[in-house]
Amino acid sequence: MASLISNHFMLHSATAERLYFDYAKNCPIVDYHCHISPRDIADDTKYENLTKLWLSGDHYKWRLMRSAGIEEDLITGDADDFDKFIAWASVIERAVGNPLYHWSNLELYRYFDIKEPLGLSNAEQVWETVNEKLNSGLFSARHFITSSNVNLLCTTDDPADDLFSHRRIAEDLTFGPLVIPTFRPDRIVNIEKSDFSEYVGILSKAAEMPIQNWDDLKTALHKRMDYFFDHGCRLADHAMERFVFCDTSEAEVDRIFQKKMNEPDQPVTYAEETIYKSALLLYCASEYFARGWTMQLHFGCRRNNNSLAMEKIGPDTGFDAIAGDSSFVTPLANFMDILQLNNILPRMILYSLNPNDDVIIDTLIGCFQDGTETMKIQHGAAWWFNDNEQGIKNHLRSMAAQGYLPGFIGMLTDSRSSLSYCRHEYFRRILCDYLGGLVEEGKFHKNMELLGSIVQDICYNNAQKIFLPSDESTF
Amino acid sequence: MASLISNHFMLHSATAERLYFDYAKNCPIVDYHCHISPRDIADDTKYENLTKLWLSGDHYKWRLMRSAGIEEDLITGDADDFDKFIAWASVIERAVGNPLYHWSNLELYRYFDIKEPLGLSNAEQVWETVNEKLNSGLFSARHFITSSNVNLLCTTDDPADDLFSHRRIAEDLTFGPLVIPTFRPDRIVNIEKSDFSEYVGILSKAAEMPIQNWDDLKTALHKRMDYFFDHGCRLADHAMERFVFCDTSEAEVDRIFQKKMNEPDQPVTYAEETIYKSALLLYCASEYFARGWTMQLHFGCRRNNNSLAMEKIGPDTGFDAIAGDSSFVTPLANFMDILQLNNILPRMILYSLNPNDDVIIDTLIGCFQDGTETMKIQHGAAWWFNDNEQGIKNHLRSMAAQGYLPGFIGMLTDSRSSLSYCRHEYFRRILCDYLGGLVEEGKFHKNMELLGSIVQDICYNNAQKIFLPSDESTF
Amino acid sequence: MASLISNHFMLHSATAERLYFDYAKNCPIVDYHCHISPRDIADDTKYENLTKLWLSGDHYKWRLMRSAGIEEDLITGDADDFDKFIAWASVIERAVGNPLYHWSNLELYRYFDIKEPLGLSNAEQVWETVNEKLNSGLFSARHFITSSNVNLLCTTDDPADDLFSHRRIAEDLTFGPLVIPTFRPDRIVNIEKSDFSEYVGILSKAAEMPIQNWDDLKTALHKRMDYFFDHGCRLADHAMERFVFCDTSEAEVDRIFQKKMNEPDQPVTYAEETIYKSALLLYCASEYFARGWTMQLHFGCRRNNNSLAMEKIGPDTGFDAIAGDSSFVTPLANFMDILQLNNILPRMILYSLNPNDDVIIDTLIGCFQDGTETMKIQHGAAWWFNDNEQGIKNHLRSMAAQGYLPGFIGMLTDSRSSLSYCRHEYFRRILCDYLGGLVEEGKFHKNMELLGSIVQDICYNNAQKIFLPSDESTF
Repeated sequence: MASLISNHFMLHSATAERLYFDYAKNCPIVDYHCHISPRDIADDTKYENLTKLWLSGDHYKWRLMRSAGIEEDLITGDADDFDKFIAWASVIERAVGNPLYHWSNLELYRYFDIKEPLGLSNAEQVWETVNEKLNSGLFSARHFITSSNVNLLCTTDDPADDLFSHRRIAEDLTFGPLVIPTFRPDRIVNIEKSDFSEYVGILSKAAEMPIQNWDDLKTALHKRMDYFFDHGCRLADHAMERFVFCDTSEAEVDRIFQKKMNEPDQPVTYAEETIYKSALLLYCASEYFARGWTMQLHFGCRRNNNSLAMEKIGPDTGFDAIAGDSSFVTPLANFMDILQLNNILPRMILYSLNPNDDVIIDTLIGCFQDGTETMKIQHGAAWWFNDNEQGIKNHLRSMAAQGYLPGFIGMLTDSRSSLSYCRHEYFRRILCDYLGGLVEEGKFHKNMELLGSIVQDICYNNAQKIFLPSDESTF
Repeated sequence: MASLISNHFMLHSATAERLYFDYAKNCPIVDYHCHISPRDIADDTKYENLTKLWLSGDHYKWRLMRSAGIEEDLITGDADDFDKFIAWASVIERAVGNPLYHWSNLELYRYFDIKEPLGLSNAEQVWETVNEKLNSGLFSARHFITSSNVNLLCTTDDPADDLFSHRRIAEDLTFGPLVIPTFRPDRIVNIEKSDFSEYVGILSKAAEMPIQNWDDLKTALHKRMDYFFDHGCRLADHAMERFVFCDTSEAEVDRIFQKKMNEPDQPVTYAEETIYKSALLLYCASEYFARGWTMQLHFGCRRNNNSLAMEKIGPDTGFDAIAGDSSFVTPLANFMDILQLNNILPRMILYSLNPNDDVIIDTLIGCFQDGTETMKIQHGAAWWFNDNEQGIKNHLRSMAAQGYLPGFIGMLTDSRSSLSYCRHEYFRRILCDYLGGLVEEGKFHKNMELLGSIVQDICYNNAQKIFLPSDESTF
Repeated sequence: MASLISNHFMLHSATAERLYFDYAKNCPIVDYHCHISPRDIADDTKYENLTKLWLSGDHYKWRLMRSAGIEEDLITGDADDFDKFIAWASVIERAVGNPLYHWSNLELYRYFDIKEPLGLSNAEQVWETVNEKLNSGLFSARHFITSSNVNLLCTTDDPADDLFSHRRIAEDLTFGPLVIPTFRPDRIVNIEKSDFSEYVGILSKAAEMPIQNWDDLKTALHKRMDYFFDHGCRLADHAMERFVFCDTSEAEVDRIFQKKMNEPDQPVTYAEETIYKSALLLYCASEYFARGWTMQLHFGCRRNNNSLAMEKIGPDTGFDAIAGDSSFVTPLANFMDILQLNNILPRMILYSLNPNDDVIIDTLIGCFQDGTETMKIQHGAAWWFNDNEQGIKNHLRSMAAQGYLPGFIGMLTDSRSSLSYCRHEYFRRILCDYLGGLVEEGKFHKNMELLGSIVQDICYNNAQKIFLPSDESTF
């Protein structure tokens, strides 16, 4: 069987191919948002076999297997690693139209030189070939990152994290890519969660100070941001199922916070939750602005829908869905408006899990571009369930029609696996296909130099300028 | 004028054509959801002319005629049948981009060998040709069904129905296809409707027992489900404009039900309605699970918008619209979660009238696939207003990207007319075109046997395994 | 560099080209909705340079410039006109996928014979060429309108407007196109706005009568409608961020209106606002019906999101976004239902800024087509942020699938600039491309005469029949 991944994979025109090969392919990667474990990088983790590397932590794959009727034992259970792999092969070979089909075959090709699409007929051979390479000791966590031409990698970290692994990586001069933390304070935002007051204790310990009121909390966060800053942090990330925002007063917030700390088992009301979150978001945004950080906001995800699975397998195991309402518009518009009025609007990147929100976000961000930089408020790359050919194309098309596409900050992996850097190749091919298609259809003038510079801005320069300004390798 | 319906109608590539002709075309039809009258099948109804057969009950056509400025008399009124047909011909020949244009011409070709698209220039000739055939007596209700290669046909039936026609059909050994009822308890769900208490009386009579409280109601429904089961029923169907669900207690539900029965003219509050419906849905789901039935849920339809037309012409006459909110997500997720927690989650098929919900549903069902069977929770075929080329393609694309397309339960007709079996051909052509296109664009490996098996699973095997397990004719 | 705007610009098939050149191209324009200043037409305004003509009032361009990181001084500030133009050229040459790229180059080509796409390399030459023509005195407001083959132009006017410019235009027999006002009573609808009572005073003066209660208000509006009628007005326009509608009583409305007039600084409650607006909308609709006017309803726009910009630059300067909910469905369905029940439903055109609403609107209007005319309730052309290739195609496709496309009332400019008539060419090319594509793909029979008549109906005849019935030039 011929390889699926030929040179013109996803490239449907000659212009698209030229854009990809002459401009996109060799750009380094700035992965400004991922969930790779910094400890795996510090340790340079090796993998026992393909199942451990590929299937043991990837809830995208688990979800598809469950849909295909594979029993849980062969997914996250105690079944044999080889049997799990065969089960996966039986599913992926039929997963027509699913991005995992493309990602998986790209990964096998790029990292292990396996050209034939994975299926039951070649699964055993693939298993042996890959495991042999893995057992050689050369195919480690760092290998996948450096061979993917990554310049910068931003992990996702709790404010209370000691960033020990980041220090270990920074001190090891044999590893080229810069690895920096991202400040992700979800646990201190989610006052409605049962483990909130417990977390305040953890944060208090990390900040080396008691946290008894709202002022203490702000001081503690301030200290942790400084700590992150000293470790190179350049951006923050907030995930909210529904974005909320309302007017607040310091006194009110203090009362709500103290009430929760004094009576941790008492639920906060929805109104209290909204007030507390609004104040915290405002405080965070102002501090991010002061540090020149970028603020990421993710919303529209309804997590852990399946309580039984949550109990048995835990969070982030493939039981999340699109929340499906667009209630973010008013509070988010108000939030940005207040920040703008006070001249403390930081650079932002917005992501919604609902693709119906694409055009809404693209028009909303157009209201807060203040001319200080290109696309100061960004619409982040097609997120999660939208990270597929159709989702990426729709996202690009909407952004282009409503805004200034050449200013787009580009792709991220949002992944737990270092093999996922192939998603950058996937994105770049789709981007070049989109732009090349416009030229071939007579919808943009054929100026390859100009188009090439747009491609390189999106693939690398725009993110590099923001997150890696010291790098000289601008394209 | 050449025929529109050539061999490659809707098939834009050689691979698509091979998939359709080698794999899809000859699959029998499992129509697991339609509104064909069982009495028409039992009686083997004959039709006086093309208007009686084609226009007298089809609100899709009525709606298009109204939009085109045809007066009601020529649609549902007393005008002459020939004049009605001419009015229809004048509309359909210009209905570019409308699925009725394709369906109508497919139906004329497949059932009456009329190749030229219908228009004013050939309307009179079509009228005569078709009527001649109808008057021959051979072109009856059963003829259209058997000549469409239907193996199973599930009608839609009220729990109080005596299923007399179903018994007549079952006893008549000259008719091949299996015709079984579907349990559709909307009237007992809709406690807010003015005819609710009247309906409880009807149900009481059918169940041969008094229904004075919530326990009685459950017993009566239980009896009727057993009765339907004995008549071969394998699935239920619930239609709700907005899906609602909340916590309930048996005492509360009993109080609400008795209150409504004692004071039928008093309106129930929205909270009471929600509680009652939640309890009833839970009870039904648990009973469906116990019987191995499939539970269908339809939502997102705002019915009978035009009161004047409702008064004059009645319900289901072309005055429905998309409800347009996605408020179903939270209650539906909670509903499935509770069923799952109690290990009584039946197989489900979800349909929303709002195409914006496609991707939301596709991600939500992914949270409740438990590996016991392929795609246990299904996203039903593109429904009603979405049953057109674009709607079907978007639906397939979303399902493929978010789930496991080979497990899709496939097409239904959802129609009142036995001519509508052409919609299966329409769907199959679009399916093969989608899959063939992926191959031609290098997005899936060209393994015709594997692709053909996916096509046959979607067109027949998946539905057959569930609804017609005794059938040996699996492809 | 070759011209982007060749004969087959946006036309991807031979059938599409034939439809455009043989049928669409020469249709006159009925611009039933624009924001061109009637005074500019009356004065036949001349323009000092290309920046004054092109950039001084176009918030679409401003918005794109801000997104591209251009500082405000070069957009709406005091910078030199030439520098502003160069800034614009630097942005537009890279605006791939944005409709402004197409519109701008179409405008330069059609009105100034500039074939090469605008960019930094030819900006200076374009500046000189265009300014030379502008300084010749021939390229005036009227010139752009007449050379665009406009037959009718409907401006947008406040009920209190004296329509002096319209009288001046009507009296000037040297100007061919008919220019008539549109009745747009937003300021009297928006009782929640701070300038409401001030506006009642303005309206009172225009109506030459005191307005002290609800009855007075209706009488005053009645007089102004008569005044507008005498000036040729044939349609009204209402813009609402969220469409609201509820039951009302005359007494209640009177109380709310008087309360607001007596205590203008007291805020009205949301319930009061809804009651007042419902009553006013009902009254207006009934009066429009009586006069044979068409009622336009725009919704789904969240205006002036950026308070800082609102304060500095004012409204309508590029800070609006899609509101993003579909809450209009129930109130709008109820509104139309009540009008229909009372036999006073006027012809309507509905527009939502949210493209997710397209299919919802298309199914909703299908519920109120009463057969008195083709598509009595219209879905207006793809609005504002949707006025681009993808938006227009999606809009046409949805309308065709859910309704009767040949009855579509067609394109408008919705623009403040008379150069925007090129958007009609843009729309027509996309329309012909859509229809031609259906033929080439075997989805509609190739009957050029019939297709041509559909094209001409959409491009001209449908709007002409309604708004310019005296015109003999029907195609």
